[in-house]
Amino acid sequence: MTGLVASAAPKNVILIIGDGMDDQQITIARNYLKGPTGRLLLDSMPVRSSVQVLTVDEEDPNIPLYVAESAGSGTAMATGTVTSRARISTTAKTDQAAETILEIAHQAGLKTGVVTTASITDATPAVFMAHINVRGCENPEVMRTDIFDCTQYLKKNGGKGSIAEQIAASNVDIVLGGGHEHFAKTAENSTQSVIALAQTLGFEVVTNRVELRNANANRILGLFAAEHLPVKLRGEDGRTAEKPEPSFLNYFHWALGEVALPEPMPCEANPDYGDTPPLDEMTQKAITHLSQANDQGFVLVVESASIDKKSHVRDACGSIGEVDQLERTLEVALTFANEQGSTLVLVTADHSQAAQLVPSPSLFSVFDVAVYTPGSLVRIEMPFGGVMAVNYATNEFFAEEHTGAAVPLYANRTDAGIPTFMNQPDVFATMKRFLGL
Amino acid sequence: MTGLVASAAPKNVILIIGDGMDDQQITIARNYLKGPTGRLLLDSMPVRSSVQVLTVDEEDPNIPLYVAESAGSGTAMATGTVTSRARISTTAKTDQAAETILEIAHQAGLKTGVVTTASITDATPAVFMAHINVRGCENPEVMRTDIFDCTQYLKKNGGKGSIAEQIAASNVDIVLGGGHEHFAKTAENSTQSVIALAQTLGFEVVTNRVELRNANANRILGLFAAEHLPVKLRGEDGRTAEKPEPSFLNYFHWALGEVALPEPMPCEANPDYGDTPPLDEMTQKAITHLSQANDQGFVLVVESASIDKKSHVRDACGSIGEVDQLERTLEVALTFANEQGSTLVLVTADHSQAAQLVPSPSLFSVFDVAVYTPGSLVRIEMPFGGVMAVNYATNEFFAEEHTGAAVPLYANRTDAGIPTFMNQPDVFATMKRFLGL
Repeated sequence: MTGLVASAAPKNVILIIGDGMDDQQITIARNYLKGPTGRLLLDSMPVRSSVQVLTVDEEDPNIPLYVAESAGSGTAMATGTVTSRARISTTAKTDQAAETILEIAHQAGLKTGVVTTASITDATPAVFMAHINVRGCENPEVMRTDIFDCTQYLKKNGGKGSIAEQIAASNVDIVLGGGHEHFAKTAENSTQSVIALAQTLGFEVVTNRVELRNANANRILGLFAAEHLPVKLRGEDGRTAEKPEPSFLNYFHWALGEVALPEPMPCEANPDYGDTPPLDEMTQKAITHLSQANDQGFVLVVESASIDKKSHVRDACGSIGEVDQLERTLEVALTFANEQGSTLVLVTADHSQAAQLVPSPSLFSVFDVAVYTPGSLVRIEMPFGGVMAVNYATNEFFAEEHTGAAVPLYANRTDAGIPTFMNQPDVFATMKRFLGL
Repeated sequence: MTGLVASAAPKNVILIIGDGMDDQQITIARNYLKGPTGRLLLDSMPVRSSVQVLTVDEEDPNIPLYVAESAGSGTAMATGTVTSRARISTTAKTDQAAETILEIAHQAGLKTGVVTTASITDATPAVFMAHINVRGCENPEVMRTDIFDCTQYLKKNGGKGSIAEQIAASNVDIVLGGGHEHFAKTAENSTQSVIALAQTLGFEVVTNRVELRNANANRILGLFAAEHLPVKLRGEDGRTAEKPEPSFLNYFHWALGEVALPEPMPCEANPDYGDTPPLDEMTQKAITHLSQANDQGFVLVVESASIDKKSHVRDACGSIGEVDQLERTLEVALTFANEQGSTLVLVTADHSQAAQLVPSPSLFSVFDVAVYTPGSLVRIEMPFGGVMAVNYATNEFFAEEHTGAAVPLYANRTDAGIPTFMNQPDVFATMKRFLGL
């Protein structure tokens, strides 16, 4: 599209979410991918803000919680409504649906899409397309467990069913990611699977890279893994963070003995990745699909989900590879935006994460005593020299906690009224305002 | 000064450094001081950048290290030269002096000043006024220890002496902070103290708040504590982070037993603060001193030092109070800048820190097992409701490590050519360019 017609071009928003992509994650990835004096594509964005993450207590929504998870914080960005942990675009305590930017855009005649490396029923993609009280209710078979209860959302109780069923019944024009196993379940009050339900309701369903390339129906549902898509990178031989091993004497007194830190290792390609569609390829397909023969504009949400998931399981290389996927995807989005002329590209995170870039060697190595983390450590041999250490020490459970720092937000346009600081509901307001909705 | 003469007004730079003030620290302070939906004065700044912290290996400066300490990272901001850990404005390995922005400004006829809540011989203030190979060489009696050796900087070896002696012999117009004990030492090759040396070389020396108010010599040296100034806030009864205490059963298996987390507490005023000059008051004095009868402009460096120092000792309330001191100081700087019309106010940090805002309760509390940090935890009763938990878990030594995330930079002017991302030497280049030096 040339400059002459750009002023008449429809307005679009591409919202790219790096799940858990805080400043620690970005710096860790920059150091690995570009070197400590290098620059990410993110670093070239002309607008850089900071976004306060907000969530409240379910029992008393007047009480703030100071660290969020993806469902609650995603709801704030998708709907402008601050809610409690685990909620999918519903209000804390009162359990009312909060309208999402995709629903508002669809009603105004815009096309909409969601692309993710997670299951498309996972919290971050789900908050843009569904409304339910608990994020775990991803398919018809898990509407009630020992831990949560979504039975008021069963169709037989007048609800709209599980997240998968709500996506199948949604008006979204293209949805790409993982989660095949959730759609393979039998839909409630039906003999057919949720996949069949989606087909009945107008989706072309594709399950591999070749089918994705060839898909040309009006509405496309891509399910490229049983659950989340495999990640690009991993630690050598699948190693993740390990506990430092102090010598026998060190158990008696901190000033005695020595410690063996985990051996440095390179990151390597994940052999399980196979022919998984990369995030940038899915995003290119979605942009092409949404922009063709469309004079009303579109809203596309793209998530690089496993920056977060790999931080939970203490896999620094895994997170780095998924920031790289986000970078390549941003390049696709900016290329389209630069040509099209009236597209707002936003990149942000939903919450901060546990990973900390820590000194290697310790700042206190001159004291010649064993100084080491009580948590788990990854040490990476760096392509640009030296060794980078990443600490995971928020708990000793199967998954690390999130953290509460405000998250970065980047934008491609200086005319979108984005201040240097905002709260998460302002992300929703910014998209709505840019689109004139 | 009115708008009519503002265009002829001299250009000034006020660089405010929050030592260790990363996005975790800022969010923790925002939540406590203003509430989770509140705004700091920092959040109103029209320019917000992110600064990559850089440091290199002393033996082989081609090898990057990925986490810095204050001397090396301060040197990068003060001189534009990336150096190794612990160096005070000298080059890695080759040990050459790197000219500081204050020295360059003085040579061009500008006035200069340094204000800090640390000892003025501490790393961050020192990098703007001195050149030495190791930050520990703060006074004439510690030029060689078991851990470091600065003997090549002794005057008898042709050097300029310790950091205190170099500050006493410097051309800086006003220096305010702590560090009296370093200046009370006998100067090398002398029978007089470094204080007396400073007086001989033209400084009026003041040691309390009343003397500071009344000081009116051309050059002022303020020493308001033996070492670092006391901080404003502390945990209740001086409590800092504490280890969670698992029950007996939990030692056998993570899924058994319970854990007692540290009891929530309020922050309280530090009873040791007394009549210490607050950072904003020292800064107001310095600005008045540097701006009066000055048609050439000035460079003033202000450090809120103990955001970092209190994070090292796992005192979250302590760090919060020092972000509050920085906020009040920023108000003083912005008030002057708004009236004066050609002053660039920069606020940044020198490196990131260990403190992490973590969930309270855990994200995994639904599993009803004991999930807790392997490190130490503070839980604060919050003025705006709820409980905020801060985790310290980079090591089990007497001081936490720094972390490596890029740090925020804020500015009051959109015309200073500040991009959304820069490396630390660009902070030096930005000041130099704004001043036309």
